[in-house]
Amino acid sequence: SRAEAGGGWRPSRAALRQPALWAPSGIPTPGPHGAPWGREGLGPQRAMPHAHTAWTAACGSEWHLGHRPQFHPLKHGFDEWFGSPNCHFGPYNNKARPNIPVFRDWEMVGRFYEEFPINLKTGEANLTQIYLQEALDFIKTQQARRRPFFLYWAIDATHAPVYASKPFLGTSRRGRYGDAVREIDDSVGRILRLLGDLGLRKDTFVFFTSDNGAALVSAPKQAGSNGPFLCGKQTTFEGGMREPAIAWWPGHIPAAQVSYQPGSIMDLFTTSLSLAGLKPPSDRAIDGLDLLPAMLQGRLTDRPIFYYRGNTLMAVTLGQYKAHFWTWTNSWEEFRRGVDFCPGQNVSGVTTHTQEEHTELPLIFHLGRDPGERFPLHFDSIEYLDVLSRISPVVQQHQEALVPGQPQLNVCDQAVMNWAPPGCEKLGKCLTPPESAPAKCSWPH
Amino acid sequence: SRAEAGGGWRPSRAALRQPALWAPSGIPTPGPHGAPWGREGLGPQRAMPHAHTAWTAACGSEWHLGHRPQFHPLKHGFDEWFGSPNCHFGPYNNKARPNIPVFRDWEMVGRFYEEFPINLKTGEANLTQIYLQEALDFIKTQQARRRPFFLYWAIDATHAPVYASKPFLGTSRRGRYGDAVREIDDSVGRILRLLGDLGLRKDTFVFFTSDNGAALVSAPKQAGSNGPFLCGKQTTFEGGMREPAIAWWPGHIPAAQVSYQPGSIMDLFTTSLSLAGLKPPSDRAIDGLDLLPAMLQGRLTDRPIFYYRGNTLMAVTLGQYKAHFWTWTNSWEEFRRGVDFCPGQNVSGVTTHTQEEHTELPLIFHLGRDPGERFPLHFDSIEYLDVLSRISPVVQQHQEALVPGQPQLNVCDQAVMNWAPPGCEKLGKCLTPPESAPAKCSWPH
Repeated sequence: SRAEAGGGWRPSRAALRQPALWAPSGIPTPGPHGAPWGREGLGPQRAMPHAHTAWTAACGSEWHLGHRPQFHPLKHGFDEWFGSPNCHFGPYNNKARPNIPVFRDWEMVGRFYEEFPINLKTGEANLTQIYLQEALDFIKTQQARRRPFFLYWAIDATHAPVYASKPFLGTSRRGRYGDAVREIDDSVGRILRLLGDLGLRKDTFVFFTSDNGAALVSAPKQAGSNGPFLCGKQTTFEGGMREPAIAWWPGHIPAAQVSYQPGSIMDLFTTSLSLAGLKPPSDRAIDGLDLLPAMLQGRLTDRPIFYYRGNTLMAVTLGQYKAHFWTWTNSWEEFRRGVDFCPGQNVSGVTTHTQEEHTELPLIFHLGRDPGERFPLHFDSIEYLDVLSRISPVVQQHQEALVPGQPQLNVCDQAVMNWAPPGCEKLGKCLTPPESAPAKCSWPH
Repeated sequence: SRAEAGGGWRPSRAALRQPALWAPSGIPTPGPHGAPWGREGLGPQRAMPHAHTAWTAACGSEWHLGHRPQFHPLKHGFDEWFGSPNCHFGPYNNKARPNIPVFRDWEMVGRFYEEFPINLKTGEANLTQIYLQEALDFIKTQQARRRPFFLYWAIDATHAPVYASKPFLGTSRRGRYGDAVREIDDSVGRILRLLGDLGLRKDTFVFFTSDNGAALVSAPKQAGSNGPFLCGKQTTFEGGMREPAIAWWPGHIPAAQVSYQPGSIMDLFTTSLSLAGLKPPSDRAIDGLDLLPAMLQGRLTDRPIFYYRGNTLMAVTLGQYKAHFWTWTNSWEEFRRGVDFCPGQNVSGVTTHTQEEHTELPLIFHLGRDPGERFPLHFDSIEYLDVLSRISPVVQQHQEALVPGQPQLNVCDQAVMNWAPPGCEKLGKCLTPPESAPAKCSWPH
C-alpha cells in the first residue's frame, strides 16, 4: 500500500488483512455524506432512487489516503470511521513527530502508544480485539436497524512492530508473527459466526485478502513468508504483489471452489457496485473489474495486471506469463545498511540493487512452471518471442489510454502531521506543530 | 533416497510419493518367504503364533535397496513385487548401461523405454496408471481372499524425466510436473475409493508421504517447489528433508487433525509393527518411533531428527531448533557446470559450495520463526547458548550409541548391472555384461 500524505511517512510496510463485508439486503443509496462508498461525488448513484440506505463504515488502520479534512473517510463515502489514518508506526516522542491518532468519526479518541498501548517488548497490544469489537458492534447495530451495510475492516495486525493480545501471545510455533495471524484468524471466525447468529450468512458477501505480500524486510522476528514467491513487500516480484483472496457468500459462492481469475484490490470497488446492482461511473476511467462472474459463475476474464512502482511500469502479467520491464529490489546503500527485501534469495540479474531497465527485451517468466521467478525464458526461444508479441500491444494500449492522476499526496510538511487533530482539546492532547516547510516527498521505494 | 547398488548409479533424484497401505484386519504372520515385511529373519515374529497371514506387496520404482538376488524384495518380507529396482533413469543404449528392468516377482517383464515406454519429448508415459492398476488388483485380490494385507506403493512419478499419462498431460497450470502431481492425486483418490467400495475404509491404515523434498536441480521445467524451505533434494536443508505426511484411517484418526510430531520414514517400520500388535526386534538397534500415539491420541514425543549425508552427521533438529554441524550444497565444480540444488537461493555461509565444518559452533536456526533457514541465531545470544547446551548432549549420546552398519552397497561394478535378470531369456532380452571390474563406489553427494 502507498503511504500517507502530508508528513514524512515512508511507504507503509503493512501486510494487512482487509476483509470487506457487504450485506446487500437492499440496494444502497448515498449516505448522508455522499456516495454509498468510494470517492465522493460519484455521479450515477446520486440520481438513482433507492429503497434502502446502506450504512458504510471503515474500521482499522489502513486508510493511507491522507489525514487532512479533505481526505477524511467521512468525506469519501463512509458514514462511520473508527481507526487511524496510518499504521502503528512509532512510538514517537511527540516532539519531532506526533504519535498516530485514532479517530472515531471526526474526532481523535487517543494515540497509539498512549491511549492505545503497544508493548514493544512483550508484543502485547489489544488493537485487533478493539477493531474486532467495533466490527461486531457495527454489524449488530445495522442488523437491529435492519439496514444493509458495507464494512471495510482493515486491521493492521501483522504489520511490524508485530503484536497480539495476551490470549494469543506465545500460542503459535511461528513466533509473534504467528500469534498475530492466529488472532486475525480467530477474529474473522468470530465475525463470520456473528453473521450466522444474526441469520445474515446468505445475505452477506465477505471478501478477505491482503494489500501486499509479507514484508520480509522485518525478518526474521517479525516477518511472514511468501512461500515459493520471490522477495516481499515493496517489490514488484510475486512475493510483493501476489496474494490469495477468499470470497465467502454461502448459498451463492460454492464452498472450496478455486478460481484462477487474476484480481486486484481495485476490483473491489467495481465488484461492490455490482453486488448492489450498480454500474461504475462512466465519466472517468475505472480500472477495476467486476469479479462476480468469476466468483458466481466461474467465468474467467483474461486481463493483464500492471505492476507499478510510483509512475514506473515495472512489470505486467498476462495469463501465466509475467514480463519485467524494470527490475529493482532496493538501493545498494539501503542494502548495505542491512535492509533486505529478499533475504536468502538471489536471482542473478533479477533481484537487482540498481534499477535495471529491460524495456526493449523484458525478462519474461512462466509463473506456472516457475512461480519463484528464477528462470527467465531464453530471449531467442519461440516461447519468448510469442509471449512478447502478445504482451507488447497490451502494454502499448495501456500506456496510450492512461490518464495520469493528479498527485494529491506528494507534498511533505512536518507541520501538517497529526499534531492537533479535531477532538484533541477535549483530551488535552493537542501538540504544537513546527513551522510549515512544504517540500516534495521523496519515496525511496 | 540413497542409491542402487552394484552399478554405476548416481544417488536417486526421486521426489517420490510413497503411500503404504496396511489393512490390519488380523494379526499378520510371516509370509512364505520370511518375516511379514522388512528385513528377512526378524526374530520375534517368527516365534509368535498368529491367526492370519498378512499378504505383502511392493509396487513401484523406489526399492533402491539393491537388485541382486540377496537384496530382492521377495527376500525381504514381501510376498509380491511389481516394479523396478530403480527409477526410470535413462534411456540407455543397453551397451554401456542397460535400461532398468521391470519385474513381476522374480522375473523381469520388460525394461523402461522399451516395453514400458516413456516419451521424453511429449512427456507421455503410462507408468503411474500401470502401478495404479497393480495396486487396485492387489487390494481386490486380498479382499476376495479375505486376507489382511500390506502394500508398499512407491510410484516414481514426478521424478525427472517427468511424465504423465495422456489424460493428464497439459491439464495443470504447473507444467508437466503439475500434470504428474495431478495424476498421483487422482490415483490415490481411486485407491481410497476402492477401499470404500470394498468396505475396507475403517480397516485400512493409509500413510502418504515423500522420501525427500523436490529436486530443484531439475528446475525450471521438471522441478517441484519446496515452498518457503531452503534448497531441495540432495541437501540437508529443510527443502531437502522436510516433508508433510498424511495418515488416513477413518474412524481411528480424526479427520483434518494436524500433528507436529516430527517423524521419519524409518518410523513406518515400527509403526506398521505396532498396528499389527507387534514389537520391533530387540536384538538390534531400531531407530524408528511408533507414530500411533501421535496419530491416534495426539501424544507428541520429543525426539531429535538426525540429518546425514553418507556417514557425516550434517545437522540435527530438536524441537523447533536445527543445528548444522556441516553445510554443503554441492561442489563448485558441479555448480559451475550449472548443477544447482538451491536455484535462486543464497544464504551467506549456509548454502556453501565447499564442505564447511561448524561442529564447534554449529549454525542454529529457529525453524518456527525462520523456516527458510536464513537467519542463524547469534552465537553470543542467550538463546543460542541455551539451545546448544540442550543439543550437545543429545548428539553426544547419539554418537556414542551408534552402531555403524556394514556397507553392502558400496562396490560398483558395471558387470553386475541389470544385463540379464531372471526372465530375460523368455523375453529374448538378455544382454551381455562387460568384464567385471569392482571398484569402491563414489557418491558425490
